[in-house]
Amino acid sequence: MANERIGVVGTGRMGANIARRLKDVGYAVTAVYDINPESARSVGEEVGAMACRSLSGVTENADIIITVVSDDAAMYSIFAQTGDSLLVPEQPQAVGGKYFINCATITPAVHREIERILNARAAHSIEACMASSIPQARNGTLYLMCGGKREDFEHVRPLLEKMSSSLRYIGPAGKAAEVKALVNMVMNINTAALAEGLGLGEALGIDLDVLREVFSQTGAASRVLETDGADMQNRDHDCYFSAAHAAKDSGIAVSLARETGVELPLAQATLDQYERMKRAGLGELDKSGVSELTFKSRAAAHKVAH
Amino acid sequence: MANERIGVVGTGRMGANIARRLKDVGYAVTAVYDINPESARSVGEEVGAMACRSLSGVTENADIIITVVSDDAAMYSIFAQTGDSLLVPEQPQAVGGKYFINCATITPAVHREIERILNARAAHSIEACMASSIPQARNGTLYLMCGGKREDFEHVRPLLEKMSSSLRYIGPAGKAAEVKALVNMVMNINTAALAEGLGLGEALGIDLDVLREVFSQTGAASRVLETDGADMQNRDHDCYFSAAHAAKDSGIAVSLARETGVELPLAQATLDQYERMKRAGLGELDKSGVSELTFKSRAAAHKVAH
Repeated sequence: MANERIGVVGTGRMGANIARRLKDVGYAVTAVYDINPESARSVGEEVGAMACRSLSGVTENADIIITVVSDDAAMYSIFAQTGDSLLVPEQPQAVGGKYFINCATITPAVHREIERILNARAAHSIEACMASSIPQARNGTLYLMCGGKREDFEHVRPLLEKMSSSLRYIGPAGKAAEVKALVNMVMNINTAALAEGLGLGEALGIDLDVLREVFSQTGAASRVLETDGADMQNRDHDCYFSAAHAAKDSGIAVSLARETGVELPLAQATLDQYERMKRAGLGELDKSGVSELTFKSRAAAHKVAH
Repeated sequence: MANERIGVVGTGRMGANIARRLKDVGYAVTAVYDINPESARSVGEEVGAMACRSLSGVTENADIIITVVSDDAAMYSIFAQTGDSLLVPEQPQAVGGKYFINCATITPAVHREIERILNARAAHSIEACMASSIPQARNGTLYLMCGGKREDFEHVRPLLEKMSSSLRYIGPAGKAAEVKALVNMVMNINTAALAEGLGLGEALGIDLDVLREVFSQTGAASRVLETDGADMQNRDHDCYFSAAHAAKDSGIAVSLARETGVELPLAQATLDQYERMKRAGLGELDKSGVSELTFKSRAAAHKVAH
C-alpha cells in the first residue's frame, strides 16, 4: 500500500501536517492542491509533491486522495459535476478504483451524497473525522472516527493508522460525522459552561487560579477545563479551534436534533453564544473566547447584542 | 483537640457518615440531633452519642457542632432566635467559645448572617462546603472548601483533616459557598450537556457504548461523563445528588449572577431543565435523570411541559 500515490486537497495547517506526516513515514505524496496556489506550491515543495493547478490534476496523479476543506460548500465544489473537479467530469472513468478520504467536519448528509456520487463512478469514499488538532496531525496521533463501507475502510486502514493513534470505525457513511458533531456539541457546551463559571467567579472576586484548581478536583472537571481554562482567564484566544467553527459544528448538531425531534436547550444556548461572538466580530478567536461574553468587564467592551 | 466533644445536627446519610468517621478516628461524638428522632436515635446508638430531643441539648453537650441540614430555611430554623435552637436563646452565654461547622450547601449570604449571629455571642462559625458524596463522608475523603475567619478555621483544622483528603481555605464567610455554587453550576451544566449528547446519539441510532467511549477520549470528556454517563444510558437514577438539589444549587448561582449583573444563558437553561424535572415529579431522581428529558422515548413518557 505504501506504493500508492497520495494526494492532498486543502493544504491549510491540518492538510499540510497530514502531508508532512505521511511523507515522514514513507508514503509518496505526489499531488497537492489548495485554492490558495501559493500554499499548495510551498507545501508541495516541502513534501516533494506536484502542486496541481487543477483538481483534476490531483485525481490524475494520486490513487488515494485526502480532502481537508472547510465546509459543506467547499466539499461540494471540489466534487462538482461540471468544471474543474476531483471527479474529472469530462472523463468519467478517471476516478475509477481511487479512494477519497475526507477529513473535514461536514454535515453527515453530505458524506452520504459524496459516497453515492463516487460509488456511481466505481470510486470509494471514506470519512475520517478528526477529533484533535494541528500538533496531532503532524505527529500522526489524530483521533480518527471513520465512516463508509467497511471494506473501503479496511483498504485504507494502514494509511489511516499512520495518521492516527486512535482509529475507530463507527459505521456507514455519515455516522462518523454524526459522532463528530455530537463530540463538538458537548465540547462546545462544556466550554461555554466553563466560561460562565469563571466569569461569575471573577464577578464575585474569587481567585480564578483557586477556582480552576477546585473545578479540576470536583464534578466541574472537564477536558476543556484543561485545554481552555487558563486561556479564558488570561484572554489568550489564539486560534486552535475557532468560535466560527464551534458555531458551525453546534449548528450541525442542532439541525440533526430538529430533524429527529429532540429538544436540546443547552446546545441551542451554546450555538446562540457562538453566533453572538460572530456578530461581535469575535468569530476568529479560539472557542475559549466565549469568555469574552461572560466576563463582565469584557462583555461591556464588546457591546454584544443578543 | 481530640478531647473536645463533637455534636452532629442532621443525621441523614452525610451527617451520619461524618459521625461514624469521626468516631472511628477517635473523636468523642457526644450528641446528635435530627428532625426525625428515629434517625438520631439509631445513629446515636451506633456512635455512642446522646440522641438529643432538642437542639439546645446538642449545644449543651458538645464543643464543636457540625451541621448538615438541607437548605437555607433549615439552617435558619436550627439557629432561630426564639424557641428551641442551637443558640439556646433563653441562655445567651450557652454558645460562647463553641465552634459551629456548617457542611450544608446554602446561600453564601446565609453563611455571613449565621457568622454574624454567632460572633455576637462569642461563638465561632466555619463553613465547610462538601464537593463529594456519601462514600467520601464515610471514609474521611471529602473535598472540603472552607470559609470563615482564618483563626477559626485553623482551630478546627485537625478535625476537618480527619474528614477530608483535600482541604482548602477559600476566604471569609460565604466565599466557600460561592465556590461551591460555581462548582455545582458548572457540574450541572456539564451533566445536562451530556444528557443532550447521549439523547441525540440515541435518536440517531448511534451505539451509546461507542459514543461514551469516544466522548471520553476527546474534548467532550468530563468528570460527569465518568460518574453519570452509564447511568444515563441505563436509566439508573438512584439518588446520589438529586435533581431537586441540582435545581437549588443552580438557582443559587443564577441568583448570584443576577446580583452581580453577569449573563449566564447556559446556567439558566440548566436551571430550567432541573425545574422541569421537579414539575414532572422527577425531582428525587439523581441529577443523571435529566436524560429522562433528552431521550426522545423517555421525554414522551414523562409529558414534560416547558
